[in-house]
This record gives sequence, C-alpha cells and structure tokens, in this order.
Amino acid sequence: MYVYTYFHRVRYRECDPMRVVYHAHYLDYFEAARTDALRDAGLVYRDLEDTGVMMPVVEASLRYHRPCLYDELLEVRVLVKEIPKTRLVINYEVYASKDPKVRVTGTVTLCFVDTTRNRPIMAPPLVTEVFERAITPKIG
Amino acid sequence: MYVYTYFHRVRYRECDPMRVVYHAHYLDYFEAARTDALRDAGLVYRDLEDTGVMMPVVEASLRYHRPCLYDELLEVRVLVKEIPKTRLVINYEVYASKDPKVRVTGTVTLCFVDTTRNRPIMAPPLVTEVFERAITPKIG
Amino acid sequence: MYVYTYFHRVRYRECDPMRVVYHAHYLDYFEAARTDALRDAGLVYRDLEDTGVMMPVVEASLRYHRPCLYDELLEVRVLVKEIPKTRLVINYEVYASKDPKVRVTGTVTLCFVDTTRNRPIMAPPLVTEVFERAITPKIG
Amino acid sequence: MYVYTYFHRVRYRECDPMRVVYHAHYLDYFEAARTDALRDAGLVYRDLEDTGVMMPVVEASLRYHRPCLYDELLEVRVLVKEIPKTRLVINYEVYASKDPKVRVTGTVTLCFVDTTRNRPIMAPPLVTEVFERAITPKIG
Repeated sequence: MYVYTYFHRVRYRECDPMRVVYHAHYLDYFEAARTDALRDAGLVYRDLEDTGVMMPVVEASLRYHRPCLYDELLEVRVLVKEIPKTRLVINYEVYASKDPKVRVTGTVTLCFVDTTRNRPIMAPPLVTEVFERAITPKIG
Repeated sequence: MYVYTYFHRVRYRECDPMRVVYHAHYLDYFEAARTDALRDAGLVYRDLEDTGVMMPVVEASLRYHRPCLYDELLEVRVLVKEIPKTRLVINYEVYASKDPKVRVTGTVTLCFVDTTRNRPIMAPPLVTEVFERAITPKIG
Repeated sequence: MYVYTYFHRVRYRECDPMRVVYHAHYLDYFEAARTDALRDAGLVYRDLEDTGVMMPVVEASLRYHRPCLYDELLEVRVLVKEIPKTRLVINYEVYASKDPKVRVTGTVTLCFVDTTRNRPIMAPPLVTEVFERAITPKIG
Repeated sequence: MYVYTYFHRVRYRECDPMRVVYHAHYLDYFEAARTDALRDAGLVYRDLEDTGVMMPVVEASLRYHRPCLYDELLEVRVLVKEIPKTRLVINYEVYASKDPKVRVTGTVTLCFVDTTRNRPIMAPPLVTEVFERAITPKIG
C-alpha cells in the first residue's frame, strides 16, 4: 500500500458559523493531498494532462466522524492499495495533530480519459509505473 | 416522498480547466437545494439554529455520471423518503435542462445536535412536523 | 447608465465563524450578477467566448461597510456607466432586503482578450452594441 | 517594513476554464498568507479572537497583471509598513517561482472589533507589540 501524508492548516474561509470546517472542503483537501502524493510518487498531474490524459472524479464518499476546527493543523493521509487499471481508488483519513481520533474518512475514485477523443481509457503507463514502484514491496 | 427542484445556473468560478463543474461544488449545490427545499416545506434552517439545534452533515456520497458545463441551467432534485428520527437522509439528482440523462446523483445524511450541550438528539418536532406534512399522502 | 439587480440568498457555506459572509465571496456574487446582467442586456458570455473573446478581470476593489448575514436575501446592483472601449468598468452595490443601508460596494474592471493570439483587443461589436442599446437614452 | 513570504501551489480547483487562477481566489491566498505572517511575527489570530477581538476586512483591492497557472508554485509576499492604530494595512505581491514579473498585487485593510460590544476599537497591545518588534529596526 502506498501511504502519503499531506499537511494543511485550516483557514478561516473554510470554517462555517458552527466554527468547524464546512463539509464540502474536505474534497478540496483530498485533491490537494492526492496531487502532492502523486508528485511525491513521481507523477506530476499537469504533465499527465499534457500527454492528453485527464483523471476526472467518478465517485466520492465521505464520513464526518468529528469536526476539524479553525487553525488546526490537519494530517490528510492518502492511501492507495491497488495499482489502477480502469480506475484509481484513493482512501483518505484526516487527523488533527496530536489527536489520535480520526476526524474524517473518505474515498475518491478517478478514471482515465483520453482528452482528444473524450473517451475512458485504461490507466496509462505513466500512472501504472508510478504505483508499481510505490506499492510493490521492495525486496532486499 | 417529498420532492423539490432547485435551479442553479453554473458559474464560471465553479468550472475547472476541463471546462466542467469541479466535483466538490455539487456538495454546495446540495446545501443550497436542501435549504430551499426545507424553506419550501415550512422550515427555515436559520430559525432552527435559533432554537439551539444544528444539523451537521455526517455522511455524503456522490456519483458523477456526466459532467455539467459552464452556463448550463441545472435542476437539482431534492428527495426525502422518510420522516427523520436521528438522521435526515436526503437524495439528490442533478439534471441539466432538456437533457433527460442524469448528470450527478448523491446522498447527504445530516444529524441533529443540541448546540448548548453539543450532543446528538432526536429530530425535534419543528423538523418532524414539516416532513410529516410534506411526505404523508394527502387523503381527499 | 445601465442598472441590473441580481438576487442571492446567503448560503451557509459562504459564512465564516463571525457568522457573516466571508469577504472574498462578494467577488463571486459580482461575477454571478454581471453574467446575469449581461444576459439580460442581450449578451451571453459563453457565446462571446465561443467567438474567441474572453474577458479577464484586470482590477477589483471592494469596501465592506456592513456585514451580510446567513440566509439574508441580497440585492446586488450592477451599474455600468460607459460603453466599454478597451475596458469594461462595472460598479456594484450590495443591499439586503428592506435595509436601506448599503452593505458592500465594489468595482470590477474587465478587459477583452483575443483567445487565439492571447492579446488584449478593443471591445468587440457584440459587447459595445449591447451597451449602446442598454445605456443610450431612448428618445420617443 | 515587515516582509513575509508564503508559498502556495496552485490547485486544480482554483483554476477556471481559461486555465488560470480564478480572480477571487487571490483574496483567499492573502488570508492564508497574512495568518502565517502574523503567526511568524508572534501572533496567532485564533488566540486574538479568544481575547474577544476580531479583525474583519474593511477594504480590499487587487490588480491582476499576469495570470497564474495550474500547479505553479506561488510566492505571496506580505508587506506591512506601519504599526496599526485603528487599521492594519497589508500589501501583497504574488510571484511565481523563477519569474521576476509580478503577477498580482493587492492591499487588504482590516480593523479591530470588540466582539462582545461589536464596536471598532484601537489595535490591542497583542497586535501593536508584534508589529513594533517586527517593523522597528534593530540597533546593534
């Protein structure tokens, strides 16, 4: 499994009158986190789009266990279990520093689309190779 | 079942470089749609908060079937099947005018919280009465 | 002068922990308001982009006189005084229903860009004609 | 003068169909930048609110010189010239790494409000002391 942790300080703009992060913003955090995770694994998403492949979101689900507060430093864990074929499934877990209880969990599923033909395609080598390196256990 | 349709014209700000609505914004549309739906059914959410009850989102899921484009006039259908007890489950279907194919579907689950004690509670009468009127079939 | 009024009900998402509209969102309201104003005057911005002209914002300024609250119904007045040459200057005034005191005022200046050459151009006839009709006083 | 640089990688969500950062988001960048700048100077804004003082924005202006693109790493420079009395004036300059040409400039003016009485007040010592340390030249 590939695991990456993205850090985000909760902004004022992201909090609602309940003084907690408004629920829609976690999808934004997830996007920022997976872009950084892919970059860390060796794939710059912008470069992928330049090759004519885009990765639209096809499904998303979230569970809000506990609220995140203004100015908390969040740890957004990005977890990828399987090398993508037609879809890339990414799990997320949001923690706030020093608190062991998970705040929010979620799953976002992306597919691969050929931008010129506007058609779904299999994950291109640029993507699969990254996850083969990142997920496959290294044997000494 | 209670059904309400909310209309929204897609704004430039809501579209991403793929020229379609960015996936997180549907949760915003859902919020705007359910607030209007509740108002139409007789419940002003702001008034509910004034009585010391808030309704945080506890779960959300979305399926993106087809993209929505800049400037399209969307119909966001709000569907409530059951009178809420501890949770209010709302289904959503997003259509664009004249196109019979559904673009996005989703479900958002909210609970009821006593704001002074910060504890989950049963749906207060202000909420259940609204849905009893809205959902229960009228017999002539 | 061309005057158009756009209505917007303040959403929960748009309010911050001070329980008022977060200051950045007025630029969103202004965009929604001017798109509707242009449509009302006879110009669909999407159609303009289809002819190869886009209108990026080059300057914006805002003054926050009084806060707008959650669930208030806002009147966003769009005022255009002059037929655009190289720039379109739009003034905005935000009121909340029944309150005569202005809440927020602002100015947004847009220019015209040829999308293929990525160069500023004079306002195309599609735009100037709309404002000539909208601004010029009709004489019986 | 107090100068602080905040870094931000442009997110997909922040870009519009012109493939550049949507103009309203710079106000978000400015907020994130000034919160980090204040923290760096010794003031945690959340702590200030806990003492019963909030700092609403009263004026903002922006000039968009050149667009910022998806995935660019931005440098947002926060500049404070004067120790605040009734207002804190902050200037901003946005650059993208390695490009010497400024992309966006802006000014945001904040005031100080006593949250219990909801009245404007002079900058409290917690704020002025921070800027006295940060702005006043250190003499050897």
